[in-house]
Order: sequence, then structure tokens, then C-alpha cells
Amino acid sequence: MNRDRARQIVLAARPNGRPSLTDFRLEEADLPMPGFGQILLRVQYLSLDPYMRGRMDDRKSYAEPLQLGDVMIGQAVAQVIASNRPGYSVGDIVLAQTGWRSHALSDGTGLRKLDPATAPVTTALGVLGMPGFTAYAGLRLIGKPKAGETVAVAAASGPVGSLVGQLAKIAGARAVGIAGGSQKCDHVKNELRFDAAVDHRSADFPARLAAVCPNGIDVYFENVGGAVWQAVLPLLNNFACVPVCGLIAQYSGVGPNDGIDQLPATMREILSKSLTLRGFIYSEFVEQHYSEFLREVGALIANGGIRYREDIVDGLERAPEAFIAMLEGRNFGKALVRVSA
Amino acid sequence: MNRDRARQIVLAARPNGRPSLTDFRLEEADLPMPGFGQILLRVQYLSLDPYMRGRMDDRKSYAEPLQLGDVMIGQAVAQVIASNRPGYSVGDIVLAQTGWRSHALSDGTGLRKLDPATAPVTTALGVLGMPGFTAYAGLRLIGKPKAGETVAVAAASGPVGSLVGQLAKIAGARAVGIAGGSQKCDHVKNELRFDAAVDHRSADFPARLAAVCPNGIDVYFENVGGAVWQAVLPLLNNFACVPVCGLIAQYSGVGPNDGIDQLPATMREILSKSLTLRGFIYSEFVEQHYSEFLREVGALIANGGIRYREDIVDGLERAPEAFIAMLEGRNFGKALVRVSA
Repeated sequence: MNRDRARQIVLAARPNGRPSLTDFRLEEADLPMPGFGQILLRVQYLSLDPYMRGRMDDRKSYAEPLQLGDVMIGQAVAQVIASNRPGYSVGDIVLAQTGWRSHALSDGTGLRKLDPATAPVTTALGVLGMPGFTAYAGLRLIGKPKAGETVAVAAASGPVGSLVGQLAKIAGARAVGIAGGSQKCDHVKNELRFDAAVDHRSADFPARLAAVCPNGIDVYFENVGGAVWQAVLPLLNNFACVPVCGLIAQYSGVGPNDGIDQLPATMREILSKSLTLRGFIYSEFVEQHYSEFLREVGALIANGGIRYREDIVDGLERAPEAFIAMLEGRNFGKALVRVSA
Repeated sequence: MNRDRARQIVLAARPNGRPSLTDFRLEEADLPMPGFGQILLRVQYLSLDPYMRGRMDDRKSYAEPLQLGDVMIGQAVAQVIASNRPGYSVGDIVLAQTGWRSHALSDGTGLRKLDPATAPVTTALGVLGMPGFTAYAGLRLIGKPKAGETVAVAAASGPVGSLVGQLAKIAGARAVGIAGGSQKCDHVKNELRFDAAVDHRSADFPARLAAVCPNGIDVYFENVGGAVWQAVLPLLNNFACVPVCGLIAQYSGVGPNDGIDQLPATMREILSKSLTLRGFIYSEFVEQHYSEFLREVGALIANGGIRYREDIVDGLERAPEAFIAMLEGRNFGKALVRVSA
């Protein structure tokens, strides 16, 4: 195993708005040796997720910001390649918080063993992982659509949005997806079986969205913010619920600044339509609901009742470009980096 | 009774921002005669409430807008002065949707008889009426503060805010009131027995508010919006709840427009702190909860456990100026017009 060198990607500079490649730096080092009670992991797949953008800023969100020189955080599927710890054998596959690394030491804290026979291991980073559970928690535990109601979700071809719509259908609701470009919209409608899909890049997007929501919107699963929110707002029905799980359109602090304060209009709609906006992070619900999620969605994955799509790039060194592409909506499915075979 | 003339105040023009006296017109007419099954009411007290501002605009909110020439809407305490309807006798006191009138005909629809022996009849327009029930519903059924938590409310000397804080105290929470001017703040702290009161007109208002909320804010009862919201937002704790019952600071569409879009910051806080914003209108809760409210708060009024204050002006013709004063925060207590003795 010592033929390998360990590689990692660190935060080289804080982005000003959109991240660029120079905000990241690839570093190499000798492979670490597992000490007493430790195991050495070789990362197979690294997950790229929008929340990572927030951690690059020097601003406390629900977690502490990264410091310059810190390894970028992230979850990965990894293989045990050396073990000094009972219960872990070489060859075991685990879900781990390795960060953007090729190899990582662990004392077992926070690891979860994966069984490749149950589901492809990459699903633990997507539809059966944090993004999938985020969709499940936001829709089932907050949005709670009733049969016949309309559920709308943006980034509908992504790992969260795609599950939101499919779970909405299972609940008997209409699912309306919003995605960027006709290819993604086709996928959302034909492959993911949403009732409708609308391209947010089309010039008349607000009118198109209204046209496919003839009875308004009862649950809007918010994961983008920005212009999509402005188009959704007038379509929300009385007592509509908005689980707020992400705001990718505003993470980089850029967007149309036309000097208009949009807050009063949003507050007015909250008041006059008795809306509920509820921010959430999946971790709030893990203890009580993660096992039921794994059981239910795991079975649906196995029998084809739920579909998912992955967008995999090869090589840890390509993580920065893939991450930037994802923030700009240029991925098509759950963004993953294949770090080793 | 025919010595009287009937008077009413109609919407003469739609306000552009703040209403002015010329947006209203006083009209006189002969007293109407009650027909078969009708009663004639003489208004004693007219209630002035912020929601009326919204109805003056040509924009659908939760109710239809007024048309030019329509009598201004409003609730009143009135006395039966002629009756052709079984069950109503001359001298009966009722709560009625008369609008801004000196006299009104009614077929009994929507009337509620008041017993002056139980509580002063004006309380049916304030602490035991729609404003009081709004406070009760928003705090008890949405905000749900726990003992030891901090509840903040603006317009704290007004009919809604004053009850919000007093109910918070009864729930074992800390009550922080926000009001305009030292006289109102003194009243909120000393008479209404809030834990703290902060003057939103003070230059360092955000810092003062932070100083009296050392453990942050768990429930913010939103009835003003605008600059107060901006000061509250950074103080909200994780999982804080914000019942949104009014936005008086933005009803007239005027305010600091410094070209900054405040929506992204609010959405970011909703997300990163798992906040709940819930708009509501009291009517949603009337059927299930109004009797318990009357019983509970009625008893507290009777035994002095809840205090209230009224700001009464004399004469229907002064309703427009009193209404404008209330929108600008120049009232001190529940705004009422004494229309007849």
C-alpha cells in the first residue's frame, strides 16, 4: 500500500462570490500509518454537496467555518485498507466523514458499515444518504402534502429534488419539478415520472410554472431561493407549507440586485395566505426517523419504485471543478467524485 | 329618534402610502327605518385596527378590497334602538360589523350580545375581542413558548402586544416588549409587568434589544415588520418560532429603501437556525378556541391578572385622524372612537 501517496484538497482562499479553482489547493503527503485502535481508509467516492459552499465563508452558519489551509469537509464511501481496530477488517466498506482526501485515519467514530449487496454503495451518499433523508424529512415531516395537493420542487433532477417529487407522487400529490434545461426537464418528467417539469431558464418561466400549477402550490420544497422563489410565491395557496432546506442560488452572494427589497412582499404573502416557512437541517430528524427512512426508501430503490441518477467525475484532483459545476447547476444527478476504483 | 341624522365615513380616495384625511369623506343621511325582521343599531364604540389599511388598497389580501365610496369596514359595540326582530330588545348591547357608521340596520347576522355586567363592553373590541384573540392564538397555538424561554413582541402597549407579553409571563416565559417612546415603555414594564421594554426609536435600538435578550429570542410575535424585524433576526435562537400576525410598518408601503434586498438574509437565517415563520389570521382558530379564550382571559381580566389600556377619541368625524395616528404609532392603547354616549 505504500506505493500510494495520500492526497487532499484544502481551502486555499475564501471565494468572493462564486468559487474559482484557485480557492482550492491539492496537497500530497506520505500515507499515514494507523496507530493503536485506528484504521486506514482509502476513499472510493467523495460526495459533493451545496452546503460545502457555506463552510468556505468566514461566517458562522449552523457549523463553524473552515479555516484557510483546512481540508475541505465532506462525506465519502471508503474501504478499510489496514486495521488495528477490532470489528473492522481490510475490505470493509464504510460511510465516513473523510473530507476531500484520498486516504484517512479513523478510530471508528461516526463510521457506518455499508453492505454492497443491499444497495450500490454510492446510494449512501445520495438517495439513501443525507440528500435523500433531507428530502424525506422535509416532505414527510414538515411539508406533509395530502393526496391531490400540488408539490413543487426546484433542482428537481438533483439528489434531494428528485426524491421530493417521487415521494410526493407516492403520497398521492401532484409533483411539479423545476430544473435547468430541457434535458433535465425531460428526465424529471419521463424518468422520474413527475407530473410536470419546467425549465427555470426559459424566458417566460413564471408563466410556465403557473400554467402547470392550475390549482396553485400547497407545498414548495425550497432548496434554491432567488428567482425561483419569486415565481413560486404568487402561486402558493392559503396555508401552504415551505420546508426550507437550501438556498443554492444565494450561497455565492451573487444574483440580480435591482435595488428592490423583496422581503416586504414575502412577508406580506406569509401573512395574507397564512403560510408556514420552516427551515431545517436533516440532523434534527435523524434519531427519530432515519431507520424508517432507510427501510422505506431502501425497499423502493430495490423494487424500482424510486429512481435516482448520479453524475460521477473521476479523480480527486477534479473535485474543485465538479463542485463549481454543481453550484452552477451543470451537474446532472447526485455529484460524486470517484477517488479510487 | 328621528332627531338624529345618520352619519358614515366612506373611502374617498385610495391612499398613496400613508393615508391622509382627504382619503376619507363624512356623509350624512336620514336615519334608516328597520324593516320586517330588522333592528336599528346606534353605534357606541367603533374599533380602529391596522388591518383596515390593507382594505383601502386595490389589492386582494385575505379579503376583498373596498371600492371607492364604500363605507369603511369595522367592528363596533352598538345599542339596539329599535327592533322588529324577536330576541332583540331596545337597550340590548351587541358586537356588530357596522363599519364606520353612527347607525346601522341588522337582521341579526353575525351579532353577539354583550353583558356589561361581565366586563366593560369596550373589551369586546380589544383584549376580549379580535385583537386579544389574535394574541392568544398566535402565542398559545403557534408560538407555544416554554417556561424560561424569551418572548419578544413589538407594539407592546397595543391591544395585541400587551396581551402577548402578559400571556407569555403566565406561561413562565420572559416577556420583552418593544414600543415607541419612554412613556409607552414605562407602561409596558411597570403596568403590564413585562420583564423589559425597549424603545424602538432609540438610536441604538438593536444593541438595546440585544442587551435585554441575553439568552436570545425563542418566540417573536411579529406584528410590525420593517426595522424591528431586522433587529430581532440576529437574536433569534435555533428553532425559534415567529407567528406573523401583522406588518404595520409596511402597510403604507413606505420605509427605508436603501436599495438593499433584505430577503436573502432572512431566508439564510430561516435555514441556518431552523426557524419557523407562520402567518395567521385569528379567524382560523375561532371555532376551536374562542370559547376557551373568553373563559380564560375573561377570568384574568376580572381578577386583575391581565391589564389593558384603551385610547378613546370622541366623535365619528375624528375616526380618520385617530386611524392615521394609530398607523403611525401615536395611539397609546387600544384605539377606539366613542360614537355616541
